Amino acid sequence: MALLQRIAIVGVGLIGASMARAAREYGAAQSVALYDLSPGVRDRARALGLGEVFDEIGAAVADADLVVFATPVGAMGAAMQAAAPWLKPGAIVTDVGSVKQAVVAAIGPHLPPGVVFVPGHPLAGTEHSGPDAGFAQLFQNRWFIATPIGDSRAEQDASQKLAAFWQTLGARTETMTPERHDVVLAVVSHLPHLIAFNIVAMAEDLETVTESEVVKYSASGFRDFTRIAASDPTMWRDVFLNNRDAVLEVLGRFSEDLSALQRAIRWGEGDKLYDLFDRARRMRREVIDAGQDTAAPNFGRDQER
Amino acid sequence: MALLQRIAIVGVGLIGASMARAAREYGAAQSVALYDLSPGVRDRARALGLGEVFDEIGAAVADADLVVFATPVGAMGAAMQAAAPWLKPGAIVTDVGSVKQAVVAAIGPHLPPGVVFVPGHPLAGTEHSGPDAGFAQLFQNRWFIATPIGDSRAEQDASQKLAAFWQTLGARTETMTPERHDVVLAVVSHLPHLIAFNIVAMAEDLETVTESEVVKYSASGFRDFTRIAASDPTMWRDVFLNNRDAVLEVLGRFSEDLSALQRAIRWGEGDKLYDLFDRARRMRREVIDAGQDTAAPNFGRDQER
Repeated sequence: MALLQRIAIVGVGLIGASMARAAREYGAAQSVALYDLSPGVRDRARALGLGEVFDEIGAAVADADLVVFATPVGAMGAAMQAAAPWLKPGAIVTDVGSVKQAVVAAIGPHLPPGVVFVPGHPLAGTEHSGPDAGFAQLFQNRWFIATPIGDSRAEQDASQKLAAFWQTLGARTETMTPERHDVVLAVVSHLPHLIAFNIVAMAEDLETVTESEVVKYSASGFRDFTRIAASDPTMWRDVFLNNRDAVLEVLGRFSEDLSALQRAIRWGEGDKLYDLFDRARRMRREVIDAGQDTAAPNFGRDQER
Repeated sequence: MALLQRIAIVGVGLIGASMARAAREYGAAQSVALYDLSPGVRDRARALGLGEVFDEIGAAVADADLVVFATPVGAMGAAMQAAAPWLKPGAIVTDVGSVKQAVVAAIGPHLPPGVVFVPGHPLAGTEHSGPDAGFAQLFQNRWFIATPIGDSRAEQDASQKLAAFWQTLGARTETMTPERHDVVLAVVSHLPHLIAFNIVAMAEDLETVTESEVVKYSASGFRDFTRIAASDPTMWRDVFLNNRDAVLEVLGRFSEDLSALQRAIRWGEGDKLYDLFDRARRMRREVIDAGQDTAAPNFGRDQER
């Protein structure tokens, strides 16, 4: 028997499509209802057989025990507002947004009585987007962070159910406050993406080096950055607009440290450079030991050429 | 019959060890002589059976038709000075340094008459270093850039032989001036490494987020940067000390663009963010189409977990 009777997923991109596939493959839900604002995406979701696809958000969420908002963060408020009148009493609402305080502010006000909201964020993805990019294994051994708002009995029960749901999809679960989540993610995810977007866009319109030279010689380092810079631009626009303070804070620190590095290069301070590079090197080992990346050289990708 | 009778490799790290393996596996040299300043590295090279290992640089290079300096860039001048009296007339000297103008300045003055120097740089590597990290396939389908200094008949002949040598190891060959090389590599390799070193070192001593949190949640973007930040610190110190002007130039441009991005976030300019992210995304496709990276999501690495 599946863990939940029926889930509804609003927004069928990489994450929504992967959840739909995983929920059925691993027995997390008996049935999966889907809705997306885009008729084209709904058509793809039907063609891919991801679940029961509805043309109205109300029909999609009406009978669901768990409703997951998997749209870009900026679209969640409106989606929740449209879904609210149709939610069944006792339903749990959650989301998968990469920022949490802004989502709490967007979804919270539209919550009908008898419906519990537990915000959450699966730290999983690829550089691909859209329903075709989804696959059931996406969440295996990845973290799901729940950021419960209150601690009423109903919220505690809902949090437990949600954690069990994500564990069934293969994830490991963790809990923190929305505030803490946004600070941690600014460091481990938002800043890295920002830096990657910046260097790739910069390289595209340099005067000194052509774009085709950059592409041709990219295996010497640059190509690593193109992967995360290929992530969905709408999703990332919304992340930066909605986690502004934490991102600007850590970006300020990054720029400060980069200026110090720049100065060490200008003044030929070899020992300072060596110490910093040596320190950075050690973290790779920790990431691998924590099971967060492959130990194979070059991510193992060169075997495929 | 092998392409060359005998080659000597000075410096047995990732590149030197890979060249030694590849030269014999693909028939680029009949015999391989090796020397490294470190007795410990010489012992490893012997244990790994990489070639004939010598305890004196003179004995290693004495009979070689091609002498390859594969040390960190900062050590090349001294290595060449020590090797110079032993080089056989007609020998070709080359190197694999990541910067070229500084290597020309370091090696050039010690060149004995009758020996031709053709500087070069194979754009290949992994985040691992040392003789144990070497493997014969490292140069397959990677670029080798020769940066010949003059165009005498002897230099043209030597360049042709060197290109044939690298093609035998599996590389594609290209030619440019040392100046051009240093500008192009500052963009495609030196800046990406600098940025990666900076963000990884920064994350290690933040006050707001612990190192173990960074490691734990690193799969959300950060882990990509830890790979190139794990590269050899001595090698990279020497790169930045020896390609200072080109690196500072492109770093200035990076910081300028990052400030504009920071401002767009502060003022909530969503359209500007979207346009930039969308532009960055397109370059990924070009890198894959050029055969410079795998198209598999997440570099294909998650299949291994």
